[in-house]
Amino acid sequence: MTAQPNPETGAAVKAADRAHVFHSWSAQELIDPLAVAGAKGSYFWDYEGRRYLDFTSGLVFTNIGHQHPKVVAAIQEQAGRMATFAPAFAVEARSEAARLIAERTPGDLDKVFFTNGGADAVEHAVRMARLHTGRPKVLSAYRSYHGGTQQTINLTGDPRRWASDSGTAGVVHFWAPFLYRSRFYAQTQEQECARALEHLETTIAFEGPATIAAIVLETVPGTAGVMPPPPGYLAGVRELCDKHGIVFVLDEVMAGFGRTGTWFAADLYDVVPDLMTFAKGVNSGYVPLGGVAISGAIAETFARRPYPGGLTYSGHPLACAAAVATINVMAEEGIVENAARLGESVVGPALRGLAERHPSVGEVRGVGMFWALELVRNRETREPLIPYDATGEAAAPMAAFAAAAKAEGLWPFVNMNRTHVVPPCTVSEAELKEGLAALDSALSVADGFTDRP
Amino acid sequence: MTAQPNPETGAAVKAADRAHVFHSWSAQELIDPLAVAGAKGSYFWDYEGRRYLDFTSGLVFTNIGHQHPKVVAAIQEQAGRMATFAPAFAVEARSEAARLIAERTPGDLDKVFFTNGGADAVEHAVRMARLHTGRPKVLSAYRSYHGGTQQTINLTGDPRRWASDSGTAGVVHFWAPFLYRSRFYAQTQEQECARALEHLETTIAFEGPATIAAIVLETVPGTAGVMPPPPGYLAGVRELCDKHGIVFVLDEVMAGFGRTGTWFAADLYDVVPDLMTFAKGVNSGYVPLGGVAISGAIAETFARRPYPGGLTYSGHPLACAAAVATINVMAEEGIVENAARLGESVVGPALRGLAERHPSVGEVRGVGMFWALELVRNRETREPLIPYDATGEAAAPMAAFAAAAKAEGLWPFVNMNRTHVVPPCTVSEAELKEGLAALDSALSVADGFTDRP
Ligand SMILES: Cc1ncc(COP(=O)(O)O)c(C=O)c1O
Ligand SMILES: Cc1ncc(COP(=O)(O)O)c(C=O)c1O
Repeated sequence: MTAQPNPETGAAVKAADRAHVFHSWSAQELIDPLAVAGAKGSYFWDYEGRRYLDFTSGLVFTNIGHQHPKVVAAIQEQAGRMATFAPAFAVEARSEAARLIAERTPGDLDKVFFTNGGADAVEHAVRMARLHTGRPKVLSAYRSYHGGTQQTINLTGDPRRWASDSGTAGVVHFWAPFLYRSRFYAQTQEQECARALEHLETTIAFEGPATIAAIVLETVPGTAGVMPPPPGYLAGVRELCDKHGIVFVLDEVMAGFGRTGTWFAADLYDVVPDLMTFAKGVNSGYVPLGGVAISGAIAETFARRPYPGGLTYSGHPLACAAAVATINVMAEEGIVENAARLGESVVGPALRGLAERHPSVGEVRGVGMFWALELVRNRETREPLIPYDATGEAAAPMAAFAAAAKAEGLWPFVNMNRTHVVPPCTVSEAELKEGLAALDSALSVADGFTDRP
Repeated sequence: MTAQPNPETGAAVKAADRAHVFHSWSAQELIDPLAVAGAKGSYFWDYEGRRYLDFTSGLVFTNIGHQHPKVVAAIQEQAGRMATFAPAFAVEARSEAARLIAERTPGDLDKVFFTNGGADAVEHAVRMARLHTGRPKVLSAYRSYHGGTQQTINLTGDPRRWASDSGTAGVVHFWAPFLYRSRFYAQTQEQECARALEHLETTIAFEGPATIAAIVLETVPGTAGVMPPPPGYLAGVRELCDKHGIVFVLDEVMAGFGRTGTWFAADLYDVVPDLMTFAKGVNSGYVPLGGVAISGAIAETFARRPYPGGLTYSGHPLACAAAVATINVMAEEGIVENAARLGESVVGPALRGLAERHPSVGEVRGVGMFWALELVRNRETREPLIPYDATGEAAAPMAAFAAAAKAEGLWPFVNMNRTHVVPPCTVSEAELKEGLAALDSALSVADGFTDRP
C-alpha cells in the first residue's frame, strides 16, 4: 500500500471499491467515487496527482485539517500502549477526554457519555430525555439532520427521512426561524424570532406539554443550510423548556468544537442546554467518536437507577486519545480563534462581495468557518437554483457548479441548492483567498442558470 | 500519561472517571470501575500491579488479544498516512477491508456497508430489509442482544429492552431453540429443532408473511447465553424465509471473525443469510468498526435507487486499516484454527469436567472460544443460581463467584446466572489451563449457593 500518486494503485483502489464497498446515501451504480491518495492540512490529492483545496472538511469534521502531526503522534502513541479497552473500566485517555470536554461545555454539563458518532449520540440523548421526564414525544425542526439510525432519521427534517419515516417514533416536527424563507411572513429577524417562538409555544400547547420529553435542535442547523438563529431564539426555547419541564437538547455534532469560532455554538448565544450532543470536531474524525454532555439533574436521574443504554466502544481509548490531543492542539494553537478571526475578516466580507457580483447568490449566512451560499434562479422570487430534493437532470445546475469548482482545484460542499463554505478551522488566509477565487469562477457557471444570466 | 503501574496515576484516572465519565448500562453511583493500566495478549493489569487473565475478550471483541504488534503497527502506519477521510471517496484501506471481508463471507454477500459498531450495523440491515421487501415487520428472538439504539434495543430479547420498549418499532419476538430451557416441551435436540421451526412457521403465518420484512437472529446467540442452535434449525429458517420472501439477517457481531472457530458462525451450519452484520472481531475492536455484508439481490435493489442511510464515518480509513491487518494476521497465524482446536481439545473437555464436579453447573454449551456455563441452584429443577434480571442482594451469589475468580487472577464474564468463557482466540493452552483452574475454585464458591452444597 502506498500513498504516492500512482494511477495504477488508484485504479485498483477504485475497482475494489466498486466491487465491494456499499456507499452511504447513494444509488450504488450511479456514483463514481474519486480515489483519494493522500491529504494534508486543507488539501487532498488523487492518484493522478490532482490536488484539491478542501472547502468541505470531509463531512464538516476535519476541523484541525488532515494529518495534524501532534494528533497523529498521539494516536500512534496510544495505539502502541492501549488501543482498546472495554467500557466498564476506568482508562486514562477516556478519563482525560471526558475531563477536557466537561471543562469546555457550558453550564453544568459535566458528565460525558461517549458514543461512536453523531447518530448514536442523539439516540442516547433522546433515551435520557424520555427516561428523565417519563414522557414520550420529542420535538425537532424541519430543516435539520440528526443521523441515519431509525430514531435519528425520524428526528431529521430533510428528505432523507422520507424513505424510513415510521411515523411511530414519537417525533413531532416544527418550524425553526429562517428569515430568508420565513414560514412566519416575517420581515425582520426580530419578527422571525418572536413568531418562531410563538409557533413553538402553540405547538407545545396543542401537543400537550406533559407529553413532551425533549426539544432537539441543532444550535446552528448545518447540513440543512447553516442558519444561525436570530438573537433571542434559543434563549426563548430555553424558557419554554423550563416552563414545561421539557429537556432541551442541543445537537452540536456539526456546530461544536470550533466550527462557529467558539468552542461550542451555544457559547455564541449564551444558552445552556440540558443535554448537548457532539462528534466530528471533538477529534476531527481521526478516530470515530461522539457523545452526550449531560447536566447534573439528568445525571442524577441515573445515579442510583441504571441507565438502560450502552455500546461496546463507549469511550474507546484510541478515539479518546485523539480527542485529548485534538482539544489540546486546538487550545495551544488558537484554532478556534483562527476560525473566528478569519471568518469575520476574510470569509464573511468575501462571500458578501461574491453575492453582490453574482446574480445566482440569494443569501450569504454564517459565522466562524461555517458558511452557506443560497443559490437561486431569481433573487426576487428566491426560487432555488434547483428544486427541493432534485436529482438527475433537475439537479444539473448544481452539478455544473460543482464541476466548475473542481476544475479550479476547489472541492466544494454542495447540498440541494446551496454550497457551504466549511474549510478546516486551521485554514490560512492565503488558502481562503485561493478557494474564494475558485468559488468566484464557479459561481459564474451558476449565474448561467439564473433567469437573468 | 504513563502505562506503568503507578497507584497515584490510577487514583487520578479513577477520580476523573467518577467525576466525568457516564458509563453504559449502569447506575452511575453504584459502580466502582477498575482503573486499568495496561494490557497485552490475554492479560491486563491495574495500577497496583495486579494482573488478570482475561476470559471476557473485553465485551467479546479482542479476538486477537490485546496489542497485537502487527495490528498496532498497521494502525500507526495508517494514522501517519491518512487517519480519516469522508465516506464518498474510494480509499485504499476501505477498498481492501471490503475485499478481504467479501472474500470470507458466505455465498454472494459481496458488498459491505461499513458502520461504527454493532448497533448501527443492525439498524442498517433492518433498513435495507424493509426497503428491499417493502414490508414493515421484523421478527427477532427472545434471548438475544442486537444493540443499544432505539431500533436495536427493541429487537433485543433481554431485559435491557424493557425501559425503552416503544412497542412501535414493528418488532415481533419469537422463541428460538434452547433445549436446556425448552419452551417446546422437547426432550431431544431434534425435537427442539422441529418444534422451534413449527413455532416460527406458525408465528409467520399468524403475523402475515406479507407483512414481514426480516427475521433477525444471532447465528449463535451470545450475550443471552452462547446457545449454538441445533443442526438443521438455521437451514429451516432459511427455507421459511425463501418460501415467504423474507430477508434472513444473521447478526454475527459477536459470533463472527473467529469466535466459533470458523470465520463466521454461519460456516458451522452451512447457511447463507441475505444480510450479515459484523463488528467486534472484524478488527478486534482496536478502532470502532462494524458493518453489513449484503447479498447480490439486496445490493441490486439499491443499484439505481439511492440507499437512504449513511453515517459520517462509514468505512473509516483507520478502522478499515485495522481490519485489514487483523484479518491478515488471523489468516497468517492460524488464529481461527487455534480457537477451533483449543475449544475442542481443551475448553470443552475441561468445562464438562468442571460440570461433573460442581453441582452449581447446570449445563455447558459452546464451540470454538465461545462457551457458557449455566449456573443453577438445583440441577434437577434447573432453577437459575439467581433470578432472571436480578440486581443487588438477589444477585449476590453471582457477585461472590465473580469476586472469587478475580481473587484468583481471572477476570470472568458474568451475565445473569451464567459465566461465559470467551478468552481471545489467540489464547494458549497454558493460559487456558491457568484460567480453568481459577474457574474451578470460583465454582466452589457458587456451589455454596446451591440447594445441596
Ligand atoms: C447535527 C448533526 N447531528 C447528527 C449527525 C449524525 O452524525 P453521524 O453521521 O456521525 O452519525 C450529523 C452528521 O452530519 C449532524 O450534522
Ligand atoms: C449480537 C450482537 N449484536 C449487536 C451488538 C451491538 O454492538 P455494539 O455494542 O457495537 O453497538 C452486540 C454487542 O454486544 C452483539 O453481541
